[in-house]
Amino acid sequence: VWAVGIHGGAGPLRGSQLDRQQADLDATLAWAEAELRRGGAALDVVEGAVCRMEDSGAFVAGRGARPNTEGQYELDASICDGRTRRCGAVAALSGVYPPITIARAVMERTKHVLLAGDGARRFALANGFTAIGEPERFFAPGATPPGVTHGTVGAVALDQSGAIAAATSTGGTTGKLPGRVGDSPIVGAGSWADDRIGVSCTGQGEFFIRTAAAHNVAVQARDPDALLPPVLDRVLAEIAALGGEGGILAVGAGGRIAYAFNTEAMRVAVADSQGRREALIARR
Amino acid sequence: VWAVGIHGGAGPLRGSQLDRQQADLDATLAWAEAELRRGGAALDVVEGAVCRMEDSGAFVAGRGARPNTEGQYELDASICDGRTRRCGAVAALSGVYPPITIARAVMERTKHVLLAGDGARRFALANGFTAIGEPERFFAPGATPPGVTHGTVGAVALDQSGAIAAATSTGGTTGKLPGRVGDSPIVGAGSWADDRIGVSCTGQGEFFIRTAAAHNVAVQARDPDALLPPVLDRVLAEIAALGGEGGILAVGAGGRIAYAFNTEAMRVAVADSQGRREALIARR
Repeated sequence: VWAVGIHGGAGPLRGSQLDRQQADLDATLAWAEAELRRGGAALDVVEGAVCRMEDSGAFVAGRGARPNTEGQYELDASICDGRTRRCGAVAALSGVYPPITIARAVMERTKHVLLAGDGARRFALANGFTAIGEPERFFAPGATPPGVTHGTVGAVALDQSGAIAAATSTGGTTGKLPGRVGDSPIVGAGSWADDRIGVSCTGQGEFFIRTAAAHNVAVQARDPDALLPPVLDRVLAEIAALGGEGGILAVGAGGRIAYAFNTEAMRVAVADSQGRREALIARR
Repeated sequence: VWAVGIHGGAGPLRGSQLDRQQADLDATLAWAEAELRRGGAALDVVEGAVCRMEDSGAFVAGRGARPNTEGQYELDASICDGRTRRCGAVAALSGVYPPITIARAVMERTKHVLLAGDGARRFALANGFTAIGEPERFFAPGATPPGVTHGTVGAVALDQSGAIAAATSTGGTTGKLPGRVGDSPIVGAGSWADDRIGVSCTGQGEFFIRTAAAHNVAVQARDPDALLPPVLDRVLAEIAALGGEGGILAVGAGGRIAYAFNTEAMRVAVADSQGRREALIARR
């Protein structure tokens, strides 16, 4: 039994490069399901899937990041290993790439969970990650049109050994202040994984922090018989009550997959060992 | 009905300046209970109490902060308004003071929840906060002896209007890497407040992030009849199972106050409108 979900953010359809997003979701899903089918580890699959989505440039993460109010590119990412409950994350990371793999290095090479700002950058450079020479050439903000105000990519996987992992990465929101940290690098808000469920969120990050959205889903879905869709809807309703919007993707032990969103659309791809397979720009 | 709890961290007794800590806990509690008795707002009380604990220098927060592995002082803080569910936080903040009041400014003057690193510093300077000239003169790490590996201060209050607020601030852990962010500025990990409960945590922050400790307490205590002590013990047991230690302080609607810790000692002060009053270095 295995299952995987990948998302490319929840938001408006307007201005999106739908063809490119669809193609990159398809390709990422094909890679992830092949890995899981041949016995790959959930942790490697979510990292690899998010890495591919960061590299796409068609989503507001990685190379598709948007500059902040001072023209700087600051990226956030987190990864959670449900088997060990270890986590790693980077926030307001600039000048070095790729965020999700650096987050995993924080998890595996330090005693910390989260490194931010200049310290995160220096950790990454000291650990051999790629320095970004000219941000204006490296990033492709033109690929994500002005109408897109926020975006995130993420992946959640259950592997054949029963391990669950989750990963989330973002390139921020339009008009964010320097140093702004959203929910993507916050374990419990943007990402969560334990032995029962993995969660990756996307949307207006501040509202997902204020509702501890990912952990909120995990505790409400703790019962193995709990249906995921009503749980996701309840957490989105709590976010909406505060004035926020976005989407949530979850994969449970046993292979349940669910996603929900209260925006116009959510880019999402899912597959499992029972033959379910879909990659689409879901619309409400 | 009003209630307040203040903590000065959970950890070993060894080397602590117990007399100074006891005196500053006493004075902070006296200020907080006077404010609540005269009808002060929970949000103002937790900010003011944490500000006093930051200024003390006898706790590992504010002026008592410890330098990271490169000799820099980086501070973390968060504040949560349970009535509005708004939150503000700063992480890896350097060169400007006081952290908890800057966190409140993030909440009240931006659309964001969390600012980190250089962006947080520049936001604070642009908003008129005090620049720290010479860190070596400003901070008093000598007041917190080498045996103390981590520390945090926090406050949780219920005011006469029924509003709950929580605030947490830390000066980090010995041997932390530059940019390391612990649980103190993470809403859902180090702090939480809603209309039913407020929570402030202290301890080895990474473990409190991995267990979403503050939100974990809040969801388990959602039932108004839930007893707080068993809830706090269960969350601490989850932290201990991962290898972590620390303490938790919670104040519920109706005025319930509880604290628990799995370290040698916890510095804590509590008072309520029913006449309960204690300020002590609690030992197991």
